[in-house]
Amino acid sequence: MSLDELTSEVASFAKERDWDQFHLPRSLVLALMAEVGELAEVMQWVPDSQMNSRWTEDNNDDLSEELADVFIYLIRLADVLDIDLESAARSKLLVNAEKYPVEKSRGKSTKYTNL
Amino acid sequence: MSLDELTSEVASFAKERDWDQFHLPRSLVLALMAEVGELAEVMQWVPDSQMNSRWTEDNNDDLSEELADVFIYLIRLADVLDIDLESAARSKLLVNAEKYPVEKSRGKSTKYTNL
Amino acid sequence: MSLDELTSEVASFAKERDWDQFHLPRSLVLALMAEVGELAEVMQWVPDSQMNSRWTEDNNDDLSEELADVFIYLIRLADVLDIDLESAARSKLLVNAEKYPVEKSRGKSTKYTNL
Amino acid sequence: MSLDELTSEVASFAKERDWDQFHLPRSLVLALMAEVGELAEVMQWVPDSQMNSRWTEDNNDDLSEELADVFIYLIRLADVLDIDLESAARSKLLVNAEKYPVEKSRGKSTKYTNL
Repeated sequence: MSLDELTSEVASFAKERDWDQFHLPRSLVLALMAEVGELAEVMQWVPDSQMNSRWTEDNNDDLSEELADVFIYLIRLADVLDIDLESAARSKLLVNAEKYPVEKSRGKSTKYTNL
Repeated sequence: MSLDELTSEVASFAKERDWDQFHLPRSLVLALMAEVGELAEVMQWVPDSQMNSRWTEDNNDDLSEELADVFIYLIRLADVLDIDLESAARSKLLVNAEKYPVEKSRGKSTKYTNL
Repeated sequence: MSLDELTSEVASFAKERDWDQFHLPRSLVLALMAEVGELAEVMQWVPDSQMNSRWTEDNNDDLSEELADVFIYLIRLADVLDIDLESAARSKLLVNAEKYPVEKSRGKSTKYTNL
Repeated sequence: MSLDELTSEVASFAKERDWDQFHLPRSLVLALMAEVGELAEVMQWVPDSQMNSRWTEDNNDDLSEELADVFIYLIRLADVLDIDLESAARSKLLVNAEKYPVEKSRGKSTKYTNL
């Protein structure tokens, strides 16, 4: 399923329930924050040293669910704002590629982005 | 471009710069929070009553960029955690459809989700 | 009770339960985020126009609890980082006072701060 | 300076600039989120293993500033919602003390809180 199809599916879900009225941009940003908070909660007491592949497998269901929630609200917000997420991401990757040339950026973490 | 292609492109971007070493799950969640924070900042002083289609058009560049940043880190995090975002989202929509039947949910905002 | 006393009380709470080991700075930032997310959740579907004093009174318990949680983790994080929250806030208010002179700032929302 | 004095100072700062009009509850939660995002950004690429006391000393200015910003918006939000942060925190600590008895909680991280 493409991102477009997912966008339509989420839009239909809201429309069928007459939930468009609740989907103001600021309301969706608050909902997005709430979901990122739930994702943070899953990892909050697990230090980097314990977050190995075994931990991520054992917690795959929780992680998948929280990532899905973040994704669904992000898709919905983009739709309400009439923004094409895919082309916005492609444009940003081009900007980043210019801002962080391979040779100069190799192995360095920069304060403001690492993507 | 499909979500898979975008995932690969983001992964290559990191790999070329030897940035995989920075992309610990918790680091990516913190980066995701930072980007959601930048999105929040764009809207923080614009009350709902002023956030009409004119405002969103005038601020389309900022909004697109921040949504893109959130999306890129979400894609990267899912990749690092070996989670398929698309199928996670589809599964969650099925769960939500069962949890919020159309007839009972119509026009009602619930505390915990509206998607 | 002063902020110092509150800081000590939160520190004792953690110490008595041998929870210091969990209170890494990044863990506390993730926990802070999770609490801000819960605060966002309380308001997410209530547009500005409905968030009057009646609504805030009716939801006083939930709001108080979420604000308290954010505050407690903020106090704990400052303590772990050995930062004096009160003097940090005072310093920042002085910086802001210089950055936003009364005459030039009156009635204007600026993108990056309004405090 | 007590928390009450800090609350008054922040309120005066806003009033003098005629910024009360911008301080809707949801706007302040978005601003709070933006500041937590800036705090996250300071730490995002520093894994737990490198975040020792030397790192926190070297980054004390940035950390202090971001903590101050979070604190200032939290104080302002509590004031606008007419909530006493200090007594809210005290009440919550009492609830937590009952929920997490010392003997049963010692050395255990629980999913939902560790404070």
